[in-house]
Amino acid sequence: MSTQPDTEAVKTYLMALQERITDALCTVDGGAGFHQDTWERPNGGGGRTRVLREGEVFEQCGISFSHVHGKQLPPSASAHRPELAGRGFEAMGVSLVSHPHNPYIPSSHLNVRFFIAQQAGCEPVWWFGGGFDLTPYYGFEKDAVHWHQNARAACEPFGADLYPRFKHWCDQYFFLKHRNEPRGIGGLFFDDFDQGGFDNAFALLRSVGDHYLSGYLPIVERRREMTFGARERDFQKYRRGRYVEFNLVYDRGTLFGLQSGGRTESILVSMPPEVSWRYDYRPEADSAEAELYERFLVVRDWLDAS
Amino acid sequence: MSTQPDTEAVKTYLMALQERITDALCTVDGGAGFHQDTWERPNGGGGRTRVLREGEVFEQCGISFSHVHGKQLPPSASAHRPELAGRGFEAMGVSLVSHPHNPYIPSSHLNVRFFIAQQAGCEPVWWFGGGFDLTPYYGFEKDAVHWHQNARAACEPFGADLYPRFKHWCDQYFFLKHRNEPRGIGGLFFDDFDQGGFDNAFALLRSVGDHYLSGYLPIVERRREMTFGARERDFQKYRRGRYVEFNLVYDRGTLFGLQSGGRTESILVSMPPEVSWRYDYRPEADSAEAELYERFLVVRDWLDAS
Repeated sequence: MSTQPDTEAVKTYLMALQERITDALCTVDGGAGFHQDTWERPNGGGGRTRVLREGEVFEQCGISFSHVHGKQLPPSASAHRPELAGRGFEAMGVSLVSHPHNPYIPSSHLNVRFFIAQQAGCEPVWWFGGGFDLTPYYGFEKDAVHWHQNARAACEPFGADLYPRFKHWCDQYFFLKHRNEPRGIGGLFFDDFDQGGFDNAFALLRSVGDHYLSGYLPIVERRREMTFGARERDFQKYRRGRYVEFNLVYDRGTLFGLQSGGRTESILVSMPPEVSWRYDYRPEADSAEAELYERFLVVRDWLDAS
Repeated sequence: MSTQPDTEAVKTYLMALQERITDALCTVDGGAGFHQDTWERPNGGGGRTRVLREGEVFEQCGISFSHVHGKQLPPSASAHRPELAGRGFEAMGVSLVSHPHNPYIPSSHLNVRFFIAQQAGCEPVWWFGGGFDLTPYYGFEKDAVHWHQNARAACEPFGADLYPRFKHWCDQYFFLKHRNEPRGIGGLFFDDFDQGGFDNAFALLRSVGDHYLSGYLPIVERRREMTFGARERDFQKYRRGRYVEFNLVYDRGTLFGLQSGGRTESILVSMPPEVSWRYDYRPEADSAEAELYERFLVVRDWLDAS
């Protein structure tokens, strides 16, 4: 079993994953295609950002591949290994955020990334990170269970302990402390992952990347024809505000991008297209909106129910 | 000249300032009044938040008075005096953000605040901070000059050096590094201010607070009847995204509030009610929108022109 990192193999996988997901979402959307921008980073590296706007299903969906390198690893890159801050680094990843029109379809997020921190005279230190999580505006038990079954399936070949560990990590990470509220119903999150050496860790990363579509697409298909009105749309725009708050205040990927001089438009393509804030809004008792808070925006073991 | 801080006098001034501004904006708005919430902070202190929503002029305007104390001064409270972090503290202030409906009326921000950091066996360390700044969506030379003349008038009795110093500080502070863009046309910003002892420093604070209305109201009156359409409204919503980005990524007051366990709804009442993000948007050449970027969202000496 090789434990030497194969950077080229990771890059090839990530670029193909971006391609595969773009194609699948294009087909689902049936409408506008993705616009592509390739860009170079002044301090080294670059990427390609693909954005679908005003499609039939997606109001906006951005999926970026980036590969950057630099002389100083920013502190946000590895919260658990502060001793690596300041090393030279190479980072590559695919990030996706989808914001559908229909409030009954959840927003989704996928990130798979690979880091190497180098220093002359030392072995390179490398790790994988990422995961996927789902942010519904209206809750459906069936969708949440499917999303988590799929997440567990992604982890299963690599040990039964991974799903509960990454699920818990996701619940902790995608949490808005100032609201005392999870961002959504979670999924998987992991970082600093090198378990079992490079081949095993890379295989786990691929499994996570490969399971995004099997998690999300059935939910999109199930909800896309549901009719909605101004009330649902208003609530969706309001809840999208939480997405903005999380990404700008807490998200490590966003902060890493902004701190490392990434391309701002590619980083903030995660922002929802239309958002609202309403002072001291509270959902009406016994409404579908209240149900989201009470039954879905809480930390739950979704697979108990299945 | 007294140099002992008179906390009660500051509190009385701040509460009266909130009252005075509320009354004036109510009159200007002619429509809905302000809703008031008083709140207590679990760890000590509290405040009163006033919000006007869906008025005739203001889509949202929030003005909060708060008075909080705590055992540990958060690091965000005084960037220049890290040695005070961890001291007991008392903080009080008034904060205002206005978001008008009409895109020809700029958003405005005022903050005046007072801090004391205490430690057993030491003299208390106190200082004032705050300022006001203006964020137009469409630029008018006349308004910008008036805003800065008024800012200079607020500082003038306290020394000719203050306006240029606080104007420069404002330009530096309200700057979005990731966009390489100022938030608006600036105004005044100051912090850690104790120049000339308590009486003088408090008088400067009052002068800044008292000059907010004489800066903003003439601009509101001049622009409120201008007609606008979907294009101007779209651009306003897009530009409001920068307000969100600044407040959540950089603003010291917002971070202090969230870190010190402030009341989230009172802190985030600064968020614009309706916001949009558009991937890689650029204004059309020679348009009024392009003019905003080229002539107003640049650091300029506005009083050269007058």
